[in-house]
Amino acid sequence: MMKDFSFQNTTKVHFGQNAMDKMYGEMSQYGTKVLLVYGGAYVKTSGLFDKVVSKLGDLKVYEYDKVVPNPRHTDINEGAKMCRDNDIDMVLALGGGSAIDSAKAIASLTKADVDDIWEIVKARKPITKALPIFTLPTMASTGSEMDQSAVISNVETEEKIGIFGPAVRPTVTFDDPTLTYTVPPYQTACGSVDIMAHTIDTKYFSRDDKMDMLYRMCDQHLKTVVKWAPVAMVEPDNYEARANLLWAAAWALNSFMTCGVQQVSSVHAMDHELGGVYNIVHGHGIAILMPRWLRYILNEETAPQIARMAYNVFDIDQSIPVMDAAVKAIDMMEDLFYNTLGLKSHLSDLNIDDSRFEEMAKNACGANGVIRGFVDLYPEDVVEIFKLCL
Amino acid sequence: MMKDFSFQNTTKVHFGQNAMDKMYGEMSQYGTKVLLVYGGAYVKTSGLFDKVVSKLGDLKVYEYDKVVPNPRHTDINEGAKMCRDNDIDMVLALGGGSAIDSAKAIASLTKADVDDIWEIVKARKPITKALPIFTLPTMASTGSEMDQSAVISNVETEEKIGIFGPAVRPTVTFDDPTLTYTVPPYQTACGSVDIMAHTIDTKYFSRDDKMDMLYRMCDQHLKTVVKWAPVAMVEPDNYEARANLLWAAAWALNSFMTCGVQQVSSVHAMDHELGGVYNIVHGHGIAILMPRWLRYILNEETAPQIARMAYNVFDIDQSIPVMDAAVKAIDMMEDLFYNTLGLKSHLSDLNIDDSRFEEMAKNACGANGVIRGFVDLYPEDVVEIFKLCL
Repeated sequence: MMKDFSFQNTTKVHFGQNAMDKMYGEMSQYGTKVLLVYGGAYVKTSGLFDKVVSKLGDLKVYEYDKVVPNPRHTDINEGAKMCRDNDIDMVLALGGGSAIDSAKAIASLTKADVDDIWEIVKARKPITKALPIFTLPTMASTGSEMDQSAVISNVETEEKIGIFGPAVRPTVTFDDPTLTYTVPPYQTACGSVDIMAHTIDTKYFSRDDKMDMLYRMCDQHLKTVVKWAPVAMVEPDNYEARANLLWAAAWALNSFMTCGVQQVSSVHAMDHELGGVYNIVHGHGIAILMPRWLRYILNEETAPQIARMAYNVFDIDQSIPVMDAAVKAIDMMEDLFYNTLGLKSHLSDLNIDDSRFEEMAKNACGANGVIRGFVDLYPEDVVEIFKLCL
Repeated sequence: MMKDFSFQNTTKVHFGQNAMDKMYGEMSQYGTKVLLVYGGAYVKTSGLFDKVVSKLGDLKVYEYDKVVPNPRHTDINEGAKMCRDNDIDMVLALGGGSAIDSAKAIASLTKADVDDIWEIVKARKPITKALPIFTLPTMASTGSEMDQSAVISNVETEEKIGIFGPAVRPTVTFDDPTLTYTVPPYQTACGSVDIMAHTIDTKYFSRDDKMDMLYRMCDQHLKTVVKWAPVAMVEPDNYEARANLLWAAAWALNSFMTCGVQQVSSVHAMDHELGGVYNIVHGHGIAILMPRWLRYILNEETAPQIARMAYNVFDIDQSIPVMDAAVKAIDMMEDLFYNTLGLKSHLSDLNIDDSRFEEMAKNACGANGVIRGFVDLYPEDVVEIFKLCL
């Protein structure tokens, strides 16, 4: 029996080549001072920064340029101080998931009673107060632009934990697929894997009864990425490819396809450890882990759901028996990730050895000592999966 | 090239068997006086009215029981007067599309500067002020519960015209599939056709370039209805069937699948005339018109899109050539509507003759003298399509 659920997604989306033209009209309703949240020299050297500023008219722009992959809590604290010191009215993230997540964390800390975002992280309560958040995604990956969560890293404890709540859902996102034309192949690949992971890891493979309509839409969501990610790799300025990936990113994580399903996230739990300890790119960690996880958990009981992916996503002939189809789907996923998308397939390729596997496995399983999911994973399972990735 | 688009849907949905338990918590935030909008004796005799009132706790309930299929502007005017006279804070629609549309119209007229809803209809401006609207759909059909429009009939002029705007999008909808268990087969059939029509008529068949992901989701949306409507006909209390149909209804009309597509609505335009002049049930009019419309417009140019429906929705073998597949898809649609769902297939079965076809065709084509759409239709085309329906 499918579960009861609640759904709401209030984010307004302006999508297309002229999305940025809507910025001033939307943002000027919320005040006059904007914190522009970004990172990396490219934003300025490419001319994007100036273009954004030109679209903001008479809004006063403050710069926060400290965004890094896996946003650090100490940087967030600085950003919020900047907002408070200057009475900033709203934040605008310019970049990928890290910029958006940084903006969300800064926006919420600014309105909180504490000075350290880590106190909010640890409280694990829904965030109900934040500055209005606007986003201009420059890559298709996390879908954080329609989502009500953000992930922050603690540089001291090496923890990587999420914050969430209605107030960190962006007010408006400006989604211009042409901004993603310049995303290099490696990031295009990692982003595409990330999009797939949000469907696969959190809902497609779960033990809950799923609503038929949404399960079908998950199939097509995955198929969209499988079709267009390879195109974007070789034709970076293919509008259709970039638009489909950008919209697929948003809908992977905006609560729609999860309706009625208790979210799980086995692969994400394991990957958060890789990200926290080795700082590897999220989508790449997922790409290494996901097929090995599927291979590890494949059995008579799990095979039908994995085979569904074979038939409905990878177009494997329906006449192929379930177990064979499931194996073939995992093979095709590996071929997609490691050959077509060109991602290195082993942790050892990233200079990661097994020295911290036990510790990471223990942390991934958390206080309860288990990652609940499609198949429950205990520390010894996680170590085995990490070993398959070596 | 796909078009730029904007998307936002703010409606909060509580979905499932316990959805009504959320009513008091949500609604009590907006005031103390509720206009309960419904029609028909069944709402009271079934015990539903009392159940709803019991869920509303100390909120004061006012009754508007004038809902009829094709809501009449004079009734709406009375409803708004009731709201103003009693300082009512919000409206709660209890019923199908007619109840929800009545509630939307009453909510907006209450906050307007005029006393006649028809003045708002004629102004054709987005509605930005209205009482908060809550909905408890009792059938899966229009999806009005997540949509920002409503259709009102003028009893004097026989016109049937929509109002629209962000303020008439419901604040919260409480979607309990078990409430639809008692929907009789005829209404289940009409509602299911209506759900399909919202995808087929407004987006699936249009000349615009569609985003691949959304086109795929349209396929699956249609397939969901094709699969579950027949189940609901023979097993009225099948939760999975009712849940899929109710959620499919909402997503057919909540702006998601239309993203990037200029909405057209050839069949709706023709059906509005049938509804306006003969007051026939919306979904039934659509069921009679849609296959005949497709047959009338089928040619070398339109065949590929109709064939897509054959392959992706009706599971017709991909090896069947395009034109044959298109014809077969229309045959299968007729079989679904007239045999499986049991809807009478001819206008003459409903005692409608050709005496007003010319006039209705002219009105359907409006001031511009043409229904713009997948294939543009002129009055002579519309008359021919009506004749195919006789």
